[in-house]
Amino acid sequence: VSTDALAGELARVVGAAHVLQDPDLRAPYETDWTRRFHGTARLVVRPADARQVVEVVRRCAAHAAAIVPQGGNTGLVGGGVPRQGEVVLSLARLDDMGPVEGGQVTVGAGATLGAVQRHAADAGWEFGVDLAARDSATIGGMVATNAGGTQVIRHGTMRAQVLGVEAVLADGGVMRRLGGLVKDNTGYDLAGLLCGSEGTLGIVTRARLRLVPRLPHRVTVLLGAPDVAAAQRLLGAVRAAGVPLDAVEWFRSEGVRLVREHAGLGPPPCGEHPDYVLLEASDRTDPTEQLAEVLSGLPEAAHAAVAVDPPDRRALWAYRERHTEAINAVGVPHKLDVTLPAPVFAGAVTALPSVVSGVDPAAVTVLFGHLGDGNVHVNVLGPAADDERVDEAVLRHVAAAGGSISAEHGIGTAKARWLSLSRSEAEIAAMRAIKAALDPAGMLNPGVLLAP
Amino acid sequence: VSTDALAGELARVVGAAHVLQDPDLRAPYETDWTRRFHGTARLVVRPADARQVVEVVRRCAAHAAAIVPQGGNTGLVGGGVPRQGEVVLSLARLDDMGPVEGGQVTVGAGATLGAVQRHAADAGWEFGVDLAARDSATIGGMVATNAGGTQVIRHGTMRAQVLGVEAVLADGGVMRRLGGLVKDNTGYDLAGLLCGSEGTLGIVTRARLRLVPRLPHRVTVLLGAPDVAAAQRLLGAVRAAGVPLDAVEWFRSEGVRLVREHAGLGPPPCGEHPDYVLLEASDRTDPTEQLAEVLSGLPEAAHAAVAVDPPDRRALWAYRERHTEAINAVGVPHKLDVTLPAPVFAGAVTALPSVVSGVDPAAVTVLFGHLGDGNVHVNVLGPAADDERVDEAVLRHVAAAGGSISAEHGIGTAKARWLSLSRSEAEIAAMRAIKAALDPAGMLNPGVLLAP
Repeated sequence: VSTDALAGELARVVGAAHVLQDPDLRAPYETDWTRRFHGTARLVVRPADARQVVEVVRRCAAHAAAIVPQGGNTGLVGGGVPRQGEVVLSLARLDDMGPVEGGQVTVGAGATLGAVQRHAADAGWEFGVDLAARDSATIGGMVATNAGGTQVIRHGTMRAQVLGVEAVLADGGVMRRLGGLVKDNTGYDLAGLLCGSEGTLGIVTRARLRLVPRLPHRVTVLLGAPDVAAAQRLLGAVRAAGVPLDAVEWFRSEGVRLVREHAGLGPPPCGEHPDYVLLEASDRTDPTEQLAEVLSGLPEAAHAAVAVDPPDRRALWAYRERHTEAINAVGVPHKLDVTLPAPVFAGAVTALPSVVSGVDPAAVTVLFGHLGDGNVHVNVLGPAADDERVDEAVLRHVAAAGGSISAEHGIGTAKARWLSLSRSEAEIAAMRAIKAALDPAGMLNPGVLLAP
Repeated sequence: VSTDALAGELARVVGAAHVLQDPDLRAPYETDWTRRFHGTARLVVRPADARQVVEVVRRCAAHAAAIVPQGGNTGLVGGGVPRQGEVVLSLARLDDMGPVEGGQVTVGAGATLGAVQRHAADAGWEFGVDLAARDSATIGGMVATNAGGTQVIRHGTMRAQVLGVEAVLADGGVMRRLGGLVKDNTGYDLAGLLCGSEGTLGIVTRARLRLVPRLPHRVTVLLGAPDVAAAQRLLGAVRAAGVPLDAVEWFRSEGVRLVREHAGLGPPPCGEHPDYVLLEASDRTDPTEQLAEVLSGLPEAAHAAVAVDPPDRRALWAYRERHTEAINAVGVPHKLDVTLPAPVFAGAVTALPSVVSGVDPAAVTVLFGHLGDGNVHVNVLGPAADDERVDEAVLRHVAAAGGSISAEHGIGTAKARWLSLSRSEAEIAAMRAIKAALDPAGMLNPGVLLAP
């Protein structure tokens, strides 16, 4: 079928204003946020609700027009942008939010994380996942990628917040489980399977989310450390003492330099150091004293800045959260999001810059991440977008150390060819079998996760 | 192939002593713990390790001999006993336990929950799941059924403890993910999919488990309440106050009467009441004062017995934990494990005995369960094992109230024909597609979960 004919059919479903064929209108949907991944969409369609998603999927299926589901387009592995003329199905308009009831809420796939956080806060609750792209990233995309972020050590990843989903399958069937039952052992965990499937098994249209109690006391500490091993020792001591930690972030002097240049910030209030650890703790009673007591016994914690008031806490977080935009301001980075096992973490991380420079001596490596999970974001500036030698070297280094080639960003198209570094032949065969079972025609997000 | 020939082949894999053909030797594997479900096994095979499981699966597959995987045989829905001449594959000998490291441990499928709890405690940790059958139930069975138990409100179900599994698939392939990485977004969550799949997609041979910190202070309170609604109000108030709850159990006078007769216990120390709520809380600092303060403000909490020392706590728990054996001592119960949504819980639960007596006026209904999750165990004494009219009436009542027909026991063979009460056509079709994809010949636990 011609694109015009398909556009006409889809316009009858969603209205002509929500079928975008004009290249200028399509453009924002065709390039990802890092600017590293882009392709051409046959057209962009913006349904208003799950019923329209079903119709769009059916009509695309009838014409064998493959679909790339897209949320806030903040993914970092090319999983949400078109590759070769697919239909981009934007979920942005499905942004409804239901009432908060009993610590749960049902929200549309297009609701942003920030909107859900504010909605929960208005009702006296919090949402358990937070990340810097909160005002763009959508719940549907976060479910599809099993998003992580800064609070995984406290509340788990996105999958742990999802009590159920509504999703449209490749055949237009709808699975819906929004009743919010915490215990419901009635067959396979399809919601959990969709979570992290990167749009390849179904299109999430709504999610039932668990909220967490809002704790009144919160403290943030920024610490300077001489090296990665010292940062790990700090984490170990604070954990062993049972401090109610929400986040344990880590970054380094090279990243702080970029952030300061980009954002015009002064030196960190804990002074300048090779490594930094940012701790955040919250509880019903003020955890500041407990945290201060633990830190006072640690030689690694000599250089600390403590903040309790929100503006002061945000000022400390800025050194960590503005890394991504500061790096993007310098160039288009290769972003390699990996996990390294705790026992080998310090050594394997410290070796990363030389792994990179061994392949590309001119490349600049900026490391930061979620120390509490062993999750490192390896940002490499210099190599061309399609030069994957550095990517391969880093991922092989990580896999050899027993780590994961994707901690929280997913596989997308960026890492599909390296999936076998982290997963066995039997696992990949099982994934392919599941994909073929639920999407036999390969309609949903082809090329993502499982390389052709 | 003849059973003798198959037995000969399997004996070469596992040793003749571990292939059981004699009816007397097979018998313990052929009847479930409730005595309601039984069938005939072609033979019972007891491999020693995952390598032997692979060989057993391959040889059974070569001869189209279907397999029923079996753990501690404490399941309550007939999912672990043979139906019509399958091979029972007992995982009991795979009971190895690795070292506790960084709050994680790898254990064999045959390790009992109790053994894992003691192993964790020896290293200063705890396991997040507890249930009364702890000295028989095995980790493999608990993973396969996504076991719940008493601490779900604190730590989640079994799925939340599983960081990865080793499992043998229907084709003899092995998936293995035991590295313990907390963040690992590399494709579909196969471990989570196996968890709760009731042995129909793969045979779990090992699991990597998350442990939880051992908290030094624990308090147990048994409260008498005039009705279910009052019990729910108690729970709501304690939750809202942020008491660090591990368990909120509920039972009734009819169950207490059976327990007292069976176990020779005196009256509950909180006095005799229509309903009882058992609360347990633990923390790094003693939660007793906080809990007492909350309860002192509640008219529903006038009748309370508090215990802190382990023997005193166990004495309170006995009224709850001995329900199952006390009921079994009277007869063979129909056990219907359901979840009801909180907003309709009290009404729907209170109506249950009349739903039962409407079908079978002579039947005796005993209710107890996990109030914190809305999970009710409906035990019905009286109907014959194969008389399912009461089961159907109860499950339809639950489904009409928006509940789940299985909270934590699973579907097994007992509830397979009613799966559509809780799951939609699209969901069941997706489950069947996944089953067909991973086990095209129907080798693994046929008849369980998805009715033929």
